[in-house]
Amino acid sequence: MTSTFQATAVVGAGAVGSFFGAMLARSGHPVTLIGRAPHVQAIASHGLQLHRAGGVETVRVGATTELDAVRDADLVLFCVKSTDTESVARQIAPLLKRDALVLSLQNGVDNAAAIARQIRQDVVPAVVYVATAMPEPGVVKHFGRGDLVIGPLDAAAVQDGAQDGAQDGAQDASQDAAQDAARDGELLQRLQAVARLFDAAGVPVRVSPDVMAELWRKLMVNCAYNAISALSQLPYGRMAALPEIVDVQQAVVREVVAVAQAEGQPLALDAALQAMHDIAQAMPAQLSSTAQDIARGKPTEIDHLNGYVARRGAALSIAAPVNQTLHALVKLLETARSAA
Amino acid sequence: MTSTFQATAVVGAGAVGSFFGAMLARSGHPVTLIGRAPHVQAIASHGLQLHRAGGVETVRVGATTELDAVRDADLVLFCVKSTDTESVARQIAPLLKRDALVLSLQNGVDNAAAIARQIRQDVVPAVVYVATAMPEPGVVKHFGRGDLVIGPLDAAAVQDGAQDGAQDGAQDASQDAAQDAARDGELLQRLQAVARLFDAAGVPVRVSPDVMAELWRKLMVNCAYNAISALSQLPYGRMAALPEIVDVQQAVVREVVAVAQAEGQPLALDAALQAMHDIAQAMPAQLSSTAQDIARGKPTEIDHLNGYVARRGAALSIAAPVNQTLHALVKLLETARSAA
Repeated sequence: MTSTFQATAVVGAGAVGSFFGAMLARSGHPVTLIGRAPHVQAIASHGLQLHRAGGVETVRVGATTELDAVRDADLVLFCVKSTDTESVARQIAPLLKRDALVLSLQNGVDNAAAIARQIRQDVVPAVVYVATAMPEPGVVKHFGRGDLVIGPLDAAAVQDGAQDGAQDGAQDASQDAAQDAARDGELLQRLQAVARLFDAAGVPVRVSPDVMAELWRKLMVNCAYNAISALSQLPYGRMAALPEIVDVQQAVVREVVAVAQAEGQPLALDAALQAMHDIAQAMPAQLSSTAQDIARGKPTEIDHLNGYVARRGAALSIAAPVNQTLHALVKLLETARSAA
Repeated sequence: MTSTFQATAVVGAGAVGSFFGAMLARSGHPVTLIGRAPHVQAIASHGLQLHRAGGVETVRVGATTELDAVRDADLVLFCVKSTDTESVARQIAPLLKRDALVLSLQNGVDNAAAIARQIRQDVVPAVVYVATAMPEPGVVKHFGRGDLVIGPLDAAAVQDGAQDGAQDGAQDASQDAAQDAARDGELLQRLQAVARLFDAAGVPVRVSPDVMAELWRKLMVNCAYNAISALSQLPYGRMAALPEIVDVQQAVVREVVAVAQAEGQPLALDAALQAMHDIAQAMPAQLSSTAQDIARGKPTEIDHLNGYVARRGAALSIAAPVNQTLHALVKLLETARSAA
């Protein structure tokens, strides 16, 4: 098991994946972006045009449309849309190096667990804080932040979603505990190697035992903003200006916190409400990614945002009517646009 | 107190008010429509063009923009939008004949009570079943039905909303009861006179002691369809095709039924759910009036639909999160359109 990485593949090289891949590549680390044909062709012709820090630079980075390219990577940045997680994970499962590490740079709290159910390699969830866009193929614009929080995947999350997950027998518990401790120590070393690799590329990475709670906090914010922005096609500041909408957002947060707590993630309600309010102050002109997807007639990630909270709430007998309503309304908008 | 009517005024002559006014006028009853200037001018020039039963006829009917015209009427059809009920009722209060009868032909369950709090004359709620449109000033198109259910206003509803309603002392109860019975008998005679007047004009009117329950049933259907159709700009059939949306509509119905029951209106849940489902089957191509208002940038009646259920739910400590959410989202759309 290596504790340094020789080559990185980005699976699903959109704006986020291309940004982090480009940052690693410009630091001298071998990177291959796996993405759509127009993006790949543009990079092959002109390199990746990276707009950041007030300038533009051309980053030389490998690019291909073939998932087969993950064969060479010992670090995989998994950046596909949540709707594609399961199918892409299944496709790369037979291709991955035996000791590859897969880092999920995705929204939602269920992606890393969903990948882990398809592959035998270590899967590590990352909370991504970055504002980027891909205005055209081959061009990535960076607007703000660009840091990650990574940490161990909650093993219970993998079990939760498993169709046929075997239950540990009680007699094996102490032996399992010793094995788990050894595995945890080894994983921690690999996470620190990931942090060193990115740090050297100018990307701050924090290793946290509470990465799942942090993913839930980000999910909570997304649940409070994305659907409403999509339904109204309005930015966060306009939403925050209407008291009735703030009431609804607070109801969303209460439901998400209740479901998170039932999942064993100790989110604090007061802090969650404050964090939700702060977002509209910090980004009043922001239109949610879900709003942008709807406007472009593309499928959204709503099944993994409000839809996930509604499903987990139903499974745990926790009422989540507001998340359920927002999820259904965005699904209706999706059918409207796809039929139009 | 007359038990026949000599002259009718329609306050708020849009499509619904103009249709029922025209039906009375063509039967020979004196009618004055009080409406907006373009509609009034068109009627003064060419009469009202009434499209119905496969043909077009010109109906001669009085028309004016002046509320003052209610002075001459002993029957007033009150047809303004719910948002204008209180202010218009206050304006006509000093103008009304002492023994005028005011019939509220409006959506929502709170309009008749809101009028009754502004005027001393009898106010009678009507449930309106008609499909009409006003494609241009002076022109009314009739698409289907055209019947009314009328009955006594629930006195408790008037008290509920009163800012300073005096409470009856217990010692006056039996005397009050005798007076109430006499008043009820007199009102019933006037309701039957209304029914005769409309029946002679080809408009079936049913007098029902359960008119408030029937208004609640109509409100329930409106709550389940209007907002969602407005948010998606989709007709009822498209909504019914998405199971997630039907789940939300059922949640809306359960909340409305719970609030109605707490208000003393014994709506049955199973019948309400069935009635809700039947609407999409009967009118798959229908876009809600709220959807049409939003599309035209006009204020909606949502405060008197889902908003009313949410407010009464809050007052009665009955959770109505789905109605609250739908209300808030439509309010957000209203601000979006009005600012655009």
